[in-house]
Amino acid sequence: MIDRLCIIGVGLIGGSLARAAKRAGICREVVGAGRNEAQLRKAVELGVIDRYSTRIAEAVAGADMVVLAVPLGAMESALRQMAAHLRPDAVVTDVGSAKGSVVAAVRAVFGAVPGNFVPGHPIAGTEKSGVEASFAELFEDRLVILTPLPQSSSDALARVRGLWEATGAEVVEMDVEHHDEVLAATSHLPHLLAFTLVDTLARMDESEEIFRYSAGGFRDFTRIASSDPVMWRDICLANREAILHVLQRFVNELGGLTDAMRAGDAEHVLALFARAKAARDRYVNNSNGKRSS
Amino acid sequence: MIDRLCIIGVGLIGGSLARAAKRAGICREVVGAGRNEAQLRKAVELGVIDRYSTRIAEAVAGADMVVLAVPLGAMESALRQMAAHLRPDAVVTDVGSAKGSVVAAVRAVFGAVPGNFVPGHPIAGTEKSGVEASFAELFEDRLVILTPLPQSSSDALARVRGLWEATGAEVVEMDVEHHDEVLAATSHLPHLLAFTLVDTLARMDESEEIFRYSAGGFRDFTRIASSDPVMWRDICLANREAILHVLQRFVNELGGLTDAMRAGDAEHVLALFARAKAARDRYVNNSNGKRSS
Repeated sequence: MIDRLCIIGVGLIGGSLARAAKRAGICREVVGAGRNEAQLRKAVELGVIDRYSTRIAEAVAGADMVVLAVPLGAMESALRQMAAHLRPDAVVTDVGSAKGSVVAAVRAVFGAVPGNFVPGHPIAGTEKSGVEASFAELFEDRLVILTPLPQSSSDALARVRGLWEATGAEVVEMDVEHHDEVLAATSHLPHLLAFTLVDTLARMDESEEIFRYSAGGFRDFTRIASSDPVMWRDICLANREAILHVLQRFVNELGGLTDAMRAGDAEHVLALFARAKAARDRYVNNSNGKRSS
Repeated sequence: MIDRLCIIGVGLIGGSLARAAKRAGICREVVGAGRNEAQLRKAVELGVIDRYSTRIAEAVAGADMVVLAVPLGAMESALRQMAAHLRPDAVVTDVGSAKGSVVAAVRAVFGAVPGNFVPGHPIAGTEKSGVEASFAELFEDRLVILTPLPQSSSDALARVRGLWEATGAEVVEMDVEHHDEVLAATSHLPHLLAFTLVDTLARMDESEEIFRYSAGGFRDFTRIASSDPVMWRDICLANREAILHVLQRFVNELGGLTDAMRAGDAEHVLALFARAKAARDRYVNNSNGKRSS
């Protein structure tokens, strides 16, 4: 049971977590914090949070659980504002899409990573953003990855795990580096490719026509290019090493395909496409059970 | 009104066209042709076609409208088999995703492109294939691009247009080269990127985990990688010049983004993502009217 849950950044993820925690009846009070007062007021109106402060120092005071749900680029500043005002026993976690950079920010602010800090990342979201897009069911049957550090207390880990399990999510643990590599491949690179493709086409002379003659496949493929640019800029920079690593593999494979097309090497092209289809169909079949979106 | 409609290749597109034509009551009889007799038998059972032949020469005999709905790589062979058996007044069209290669195949078989031949391309489809995936509504509110040649007869053009309009599609016309450039950008390149991404990840050591920790965005982004590999191999080779051209633009822009990430150039990254989001949101708003998938 949480007495006072403080959510820094009441957007899609922070707002959905607040809604889910309230729905599950696991916290007495939810306090929001952030820079955009209109959003925070809206969050109170919608019943997502009970009250708010635009001052993080004020918002975290007395909270026994603090969740950082701001873009990665704002993590260090938020940590710095809360550092002197946290209850000594407060458990702190975050929802950042890259974990190495958050741990580095915590280290920069606190000197060492406190035992009460447990990094986390819910694998959930939509291309929408803002508290109005939040909903209590966002994490149901989704995975939440926690990346505890050697010094993380088992008590803090259990409390963060309990929070996420109350939202209906399945919690798994892995180390920070591994998280960042896996997410670079499966989430960060696809977003970067979608943004780049849409911008490439938008800059062509015939862009109006190009978009006009696109079909449903294009809409699906580019949906993630409607995601929040600031959030994704931060992810790209925060996790750049892992992203650049997997991007290089992609570019190499794309180069091989390009060479094969130039050479009219039908077998190479077919083998690549057939492997991809088999992998994609296998992945869909495997995930049809729990996560169906 | 069509007396005998002959569809060569009764898969998703050919089957859906047959269903739509029957539903609209615009043809007396639909004859299917293809190499896979089990599929053709299934098509008769499903009521998609009235009868079939595995010999194209036989299937086209007496037909006043012939639609080629085979993969691009099979077009020339199909044309060669029908050439001596077409009714002199038969109108011939196709549904290929690239038009230059089809026109070249027609030229190779007939010497010159006959006035009764009108190339076409319905901008519709799903990642599924086969007659069992076909449905009469596939073309409703979709665009069909016809690319008539200077020698195409206005009569043949009107008949092909009438066939597609009866399916509920909107018919537009453009020239062959322009079609191939636009489709390379909006359809062929995205498919090639999705196939390449999925194969890149599938070949990594942690591929099982990578797919396990992916979310809804990845599923949408990679949906088109479940498309038919043979069809897409043929498209990649048939339209390779236009594809390689737009691919080069994409690779250049990706290189710029990579450099910006390495240099920590947050402004470059944000500007690209923001332009992409704006273009994608504009595109969705513009197409929300007629085509909503």
